[in-house]
Amino acid sequence: MKYDNQIKQWLKENRARGARLLQILVRENSTRGNESSTQALVIEKCRQLGLALDIWEIGGAELKNHPAYCCDRKSFDGNPNLVAVLKGTGGGKSIILNGHIDVVPVGDESSWKHDPFSGMIECGKLYGRGATDMKGGNVALLMAIESLIANGIKLKGDVIFQSVIEEESGGAGTLAAVLRGYHADGAIIPEPTNMKLFPKQQGSMWFRITITGKAAHGGTRYEGVSAIEKSLFVIQRLQQLEKDRNEKITDPLFEKFPIPIPINIGKITSGEWPSSVPDTAIIEGRMGVSPEETIQAAQHEMESCLRELNEGDEWLRENPLNLEWFGGMWLPGSLGSDHPLMNELTNSFIEVKGAPPIVEASPWGTDGGILSTVGNTPVVVFGPGITETAHDANEHINLEDLFAASEIIALTLLKWCEVDE
Amino acid sequence: MKYDNQIKQWLKENRARGARLLQILVRENSTRGNESSTQALVIEKCRQLGLALDIWEIGGAELKNHPAYCCDRKSFDGNPNLVAVLKGTGGGKSIILNGHIDVVPVGDESSWKHDPFSGMIECGKLYGRGATDMKGGNVALLMAIESLIANGIKLKGDVIFQSVIEEESGGAGTLAAVLRGYHADGAIIPEPTNMKLFPKQQGSMWFRITITGKAAHGGTRYEGVSAIEKSLFVIQRLQQLEKDRNEKITDPLFEKFPIPIPINIGKITSGEWPSSVPDTAIIEGRMGVSPEETIQAAQHEMESCLRELNEGDEWLRENPLNLEWFGGMWLPGSLGSDHPLMNELTNSFIEVKGAPPIVEASPWGTDGGILSTVGNTPVVVFGPGITETAHDANEHINLEDLFAASEIIALTLLKWCEVDE
Repeated sequence: MKYDNQIKQWLKENRARGARLLQILVRENSTRGNESSTQALVIEKCRQLGLALDIWEIGGAELKNHPAYCCDRKSFDGNPNLVAVLKGTGGGKSIILNGHIDVVPVGDESSWKHDPFSGMIECGKLYGRGATDMKGGNVALLMAIESLIANGIKLKGDVIFQSVIEEESGGAGTLAAVLRGYHADGAIIPEPTNMKLFPKQQGSMWFRITITGKAAHGGTRYEGVSAIEKSLFVIQRLQQLEKDRNEKITDPLFEKFPIPIPINIGKITSGEWPSSVPDTAIIEGRMGVSPEETIQAAQHEMESCLRELNEGDEWLRENPLNLEWFGGMWLPGSLGSDHPLMNELTNSFIEVKGAPPIVEASPWGTDGGILSTVGNTPVVVFGPGITETAHDANEHINLEDLFAASEIIALTLLKWCEVDE
Repeated sequence: MKYDNQIKQWLKENRARGARLLQILVRENSTRGNESSTQALVIEKCRQLGLALDIWEIGGAELKNHPAYCCDRKSFDGNPNLVAVLKGTGGGKSIILNGHIDVVPVGDESSWKHDPFSGMIECGKLYGRGATDMKGGNVALLMAIESLIANGIKLKGDVIFQSVIEEESGGAGTLAAVLRGYHADGAIIPEPTNMKLFPKQQGSMWFRITITGKAAHGGTRYEGVSAIEKSLFVIQRLQQLEKDRNEKITDPLFEKFPIPIPINIGKITSGEWPSSVPDTAIIEGRMGVSPEETIQAAQHEMESCLRELNEGDEWLRENPLNLEWFGGMWLPGSLGSDHPLMNELTNSFIEVKGAPPIVEASPWGTDGGILSTVGNTPVVVFGPGITETAHDANEHINLEDLFAASEIIALTLLKWCEVDE
């Protein structure tokens, strides 16, 4: 508790600098393939803080052949990953502070009140793509680190700050950092959780099912086999699978979620002509994965399900459903609610906010799945961003929350990594 | 019976000329908007036969405002309709011989064995787009008329030959001919019926249903309303409607058809992203119409059905299904199997083929619906083309059937219109 007030005081006095840092990060568009200019600002910030920099362009066979690698990006050239380490004096627990620098596209620009890259501040909210997801979280981390350095506090354990690319597209940046050897005794990822603590995260992956029918004229449609009618059976079976899978989820962290691990049918296309029987249908969707199961186990359940459909239907026996796992894949993550990192974060939260945090499981995947599953690093997802505005028009963050999160994280570092007196 | 053998003999001797006429018609591509060059060949043939020609470009307010007008074509300029009349001496029954000159596109050219416009003859079959649907039928008509003229036979009733555009797109050509004043005591349309007699024809029309949902992230899909899930309800309700409508069909002419008047769901598109809840779905299809009901009555049934769905669902009450009737519409047609025209055609058929014809209802619409419903002209659809090859690659016709149909039609004309001795 010795340094807590010092840290709090410093962070209070430096709010304007924190807001300014977020503003300059938001003003750079860092969509996929364009991360370099924002990353350069983060690198310069870390250099000024005197951190040990490791800057590299990800890639190579080890990464691309890894089972958790899920990425259709052709080249990472020119858009590096960054790891910046505040080396400890030894003996304390280490921590990874991980944030992604990539943002999703702005979408329909006409839905935005301001320029999506304005970084405009209005009534305590900072607006712009990435403000909430998750440059605001990244600034909370950097301000927490700076508060230690500025106050001359030395920690025993290493603080490993990671500014990674590719989170929005499946986590190749964090996977590359894990494969480069970075792991720690704990990790915090300040994704936009509305200040909730997420020790568990739903994983997910995308699937595509192709259904084959037989074309015919609509006036004699019984001479064909409608790929749309067969799709109905498939969708109904997937609805049943979703029901069965969710009935098994009893974790109280999920109790507020009507469907803890949804199977979302996001897209269907079939047919070209109103008066023809369609001979092909394509369904695409997202399958949620429980924190307590593996991607493989979940895939296996859907595969069995479709195999049953194929076996039970005369037409499908000859013209089987085709299942592909494509595009995004996010590993689930699971940490016990009584893990020491949860305890430290909770205590710091109470110290700053005066009440205990809400603890839940996240309804979406983060890089936490890779950090914990591949990197063997216990992860808590906790951040100041507003879940609802992520990926949406008029994305914004409450600066008050950013500063509170920064305090909570700084206080946690003091205890987790231990101060070297 | 006096002239029958003379006619049969002449048609037998002039088979090569008939095949040659079909060949030159097939060699001209007469897809929508390109009918003029083929129509020019038909006009010249009718001029040579000494028929009274009426050639005009369709259009005008009366046509376009008619409730049976269903056409999205911008211009008919340069692609005329033709009516060519063999004037009777008076006192006999008149007849319309109606054939359309437009053909559907060739589709995937690589699926054709020969050039789609080759008109190649192989083993008694003439190949090419339009050979069966329905230039072959048109040639059967023209050869029947020529056989009368060549043998100096005068009929009492008028023979009104019509070569119309736009059948494949909803019948604006035949509607224009009806509105120009052409009607008769009977009509034959030699669409490809496999030599069956169709006194009744299924009508049809296209519909589009737009379903509105509410977008959300797939990981919290319960926060949205899936337009795909709502589509499932709609499709299931339409399946029930199809069942209910078909249970009412007891006409023996339909007994071979598993579903006499199908509701075909030809197309569905919904969603843009696997991990989003889709907020819009569009279903397009074709609704079959019974020969004994009107287009309006059938539309009303579907409208009631969707209204029920809207009223019974909380979401749809606020976000109702939107139904449009768009694109094609083909009126149904119904003639009693004991109509005198059916009797004459049947007798002629037996005389030529030695056995009675198969009598059925057609599973698709023709211009017969407009001729009978709007033009008050009793219609039988009967022709030499092969139903299965219409609209398909390698479309072809058996020339033997073409000549037989021509004989049957010529003999029918002798009796229907009566010979003026």
